[in-house]
Amino acid sequence: MSDSLRLGIAGLGTVGAGVVKIVRRKQALLAARSGRAIEISAVSARNRDKDRGVPLGDYAWEDDPVALAGRDDVDVFVELIGGSDGPAKAATETALKAGKDVVTANKAMLAHHGQALAELAEKNGAALRFEAAVAGGIPVIKALTEALAGNEITRVLGVMNGTCNYILTRMESAGLSYDEVFAEADQLGYLEADPNLDVGGIDAGHKLSLLASIAFGTQVAFDAVELEGIGRIGIDDINAAADMGYKIKLLGVTRMTGRGLEQRMTPCLVPAASPLGQLDGGTNMVIIEGDDVGQIVLRGAGAGEGPTASAVMGDVMDLARGLRVTTFGVPASRLTSVTTAQASAPAPYYLRMNLLDKPGALAKIAAVLGESGVSINRMRQYGHQDKTAPVLIVTHRTTFQAMEMAVAAMGETGVMEAAPVVLRIEDL
Amino acid sequence: MSDSLRLGIAGLGTVGAGVVKIVRRKQALLAARSGRAIEISAVSARNRDKDRGVPLGDYAWEDDPVALAGRDDVDVFVELIGGSDGPAKAATETALKAGKDVVTANKAMLAHHGQALAELAEKNGAALRFEAAVAGGIPVIKALTEALAGNEITRVLGVMNGTCNYILTRMESAGLSYDEVFAEADQLGYLEADPNLDVGGIDAGHKLSLLASIAFGTQVAFDAVELEGIGRIGIDDINAAADMGYKIKLLGVTRMTGRGLEQRMTPCLVPAASPLGQLDGGTNMVIIEGDDVGQIVLRGAGAGEGPTASAVMGDVMDLARGLRVTTFGVPASRLTSVTTAQASAPAPYYLRMNLLDKPGALAKIAAVLGESGVSINRMRQYGHQDKTAPVLIVTHRTTFQAMEMAVAAMGETGVMEAAPVVLRIEDL
Repeated sequence: MSDSLRLGIAGLGTVGAGVVKIVRRKQALLAARSGRAIEISAVSARNRDKDRGVPLGDYAWEDDPVALAGRDDVDVFVELIGGSDGPAKAATETALKAGKDVVTANKAMLAHHGQALAELAEKNGAALRFEAAVAGGIPVIKALTEALAGNEITRVLGVMNGTCNYILTRMESAGLSYDEVFAEADQLGYLEADPNLDVGGIDAGHKLSLLASIAFGTQVAFDAVELEGIGRIGIDDINAAADMGYKIKLLGVTRMTGRGLEQRMTPCLVPAASPLGQLDGGTNMVIIEGDDVGQIVLRGAGAGEGPTASAVMGDVMDLARGLRVTTFGVPASRLTSVTTAQASAPAPYYLRMNLLDKPGALAKIAAVLGESGVSINRMRQYGHQDKTAPVLIVTHRTTFQAMEMAVAAMGETGVMEAAPVVLRIEDL
Repeated sequence: MSDSLRLGIAGLGTVGAGVVKIVRRKQALLAARSGRAIEISAVSARNRDKDRGVPLGDYAWEDDPVALAGRDDVDVFVELIGGSDGPAKAATETALKAGKDVVTANKAMLAHHGQALAELAEKNGAALRFEAAVAGGIPVIKALTEALAGNEITRVLGVMNGTCNYILTRMESAGLSYDEVFAEADQLGYLEADPNLDVGGIDAGHKLSLLASIAFGTQVAFDAVELEGIGRIGIDDINAAADMGYKIKLLGVTRMTGRGLEQRMTPCLVPAASPLGQLDGGTNMVIIEGDDVGQIVLRGAGAGEGPTASAVMGDVMDLARGLRVTTFGVPASRLTSVTTAQASAPAPYYLRMNLLDKPGALAKIAAVLGESGVSINRMRQYGHQDKTAPVLIVTHRTTFQAMEMAVAAMGETGVMEAAPVVLRIEDL
């Protein structure tokens, strides 16, 4: 048996404490599988005195994660501090510069500094692994980088924020408003300290930008992600979408188009009967499409102590076994800087509006859609409520530009109570 | 860039030809990702003159796969011949003895000789990889062996034979008998040369035995798999199961119990609304449950040129990158030989029978079930057809032994037209 692999763990929240528990509880199993003992040399966190449900007395303590990252008795620096900059980044850089491997769950840091950190890792012969940063326990980074390495990836899409999916499915099942469910989620402790990271789609956007980089061999470009959270989704939209056979999801989609890289993290409609449509609660799902493999669907818990610690340990075990791949699947110097696709590929769209009780109102809407080149697939008008009538339209596939033109023209007709709700329908 | 990785490919059926196409078409992509050129040195098949839709003139030809496996210009022997013994095994052994790595899609060979081949590989410092042997393009071997290496695996289950799933779902959707759909599948070329490999559950049983070995660190024990094909499943059972909210699947299940290793590949009922219940047609699904990760669901094409070649290439790319793990996740010498669990863990059961038109018939059935300690959860009696009345029973969780006793006692009552159909319901 080789020498042991010595970890330094910075950040002892639920995930960090979970990793410590696994290393302590499963010594024999981990050693049998990796051929080496996995040990913890030192740990670091803000508060030394907090009870984390696991004894830490066997390990050296460092108040400063940068000091931990530089210790001679640390082979792998496990970064579970979080935050795109500050101590997490400083300690990661220290470890990489010292040629130490790094395992991190920090999607924000990689979304903002992935290229620089990947270059730093390679320059120093170190590995930088981050399975836990995307979709919790689901091995999506490994699947894309390794298992599907013989494929040209054509599209990656999925639900990557359990909190948003919980809110949307809870709104539907309980018939509650966004604000009511948001308050519930807050009370249950489901929200990040800055809730906009979740409901604003930022956290999920970070993840999507990492998947896009691996899928297409491009430099991480989080700033180019088209980002919209779930704040404008009302219970009326959820019910109307259900009525037409759809579910609303905060959906991440990335594909390489002839016009550049498309990266979107926005509310979309998906068929209710599809695997994505049936995904309830806090579960995550990532779908990978490749030219040879076809469509692979991966589903599991996207957050929480066990699933996230499982992903961290997967990376640690790879390093213990000597399995090392470049950060984003190709050498950092070969990651290309690409144009952002300015508008999405053609898609069907969903429109919801309230028409005023005027003769010919529906005809006017239908006419301006036709004039904009947008063809109607299905339409439903419901009975008048007060002075307006709800109308739902599902279009045939059309461009975003045509849809924008149509919506502008609809505004000129004077027959709508307000601008329509427009949501893309993602083909599956 | 390192030296190129040189493949010798034996077997040029759809998968072998698919691998050749990928290596030819994606030279630049494969080299960028692995850091090495992937080349083909030599190929082998039974018929040199057959047109396989891809030019082979660049490669040396060997009539004998054993000669191919021993060539000095082959680093990785890719075994796509098939068959548990014969040339596939002889050539694999030749390659391993020469210290060459082997990538294979041969589930039968590994199910029967996995332990010996794993020992041979390790003795000679060679790797033996087989992602393509289980569930086609779905990276289930990699997920279990590497990504989830920090978990105690608690259960692995799934649908691992697309032909059986196609037959069962087609029977339901078209209302056809088993024999009619079997004939259809035969005409469409979906069946193996020996159809019993598919419909008898043998092929799927091979796969399950490999997953069990990796999941639990045990020696492959295909002979200990409880095996039953789909031949006795009638359209009446499919319809009755649907009526009670279930689908019938040829379901593989393996778990480690206090009494030993449970391995079953048998027709089971699963909830119609579960991911497994919704799996239609030739798609495969494998569900992995671990103590930390919870439940991971993997879904994709289980067969076909592209998906299977994708899995072969995933293994080849791993070897090109220097990623090497032991065959079954721990050294072959540490794989344990375990007792087979003689009876399954308690489960609910489904019973279908036709009761004779006699007073008190149903009461007698209910009474003997109760006397055997089997408690009824749900029951439906339908109207009499001719002289019998169909009855469906879903029991509460009970042991296989209690169920066997109950069925024997039911036979003594004289109120059933024939012995009941009994199927296990797998909890999800």
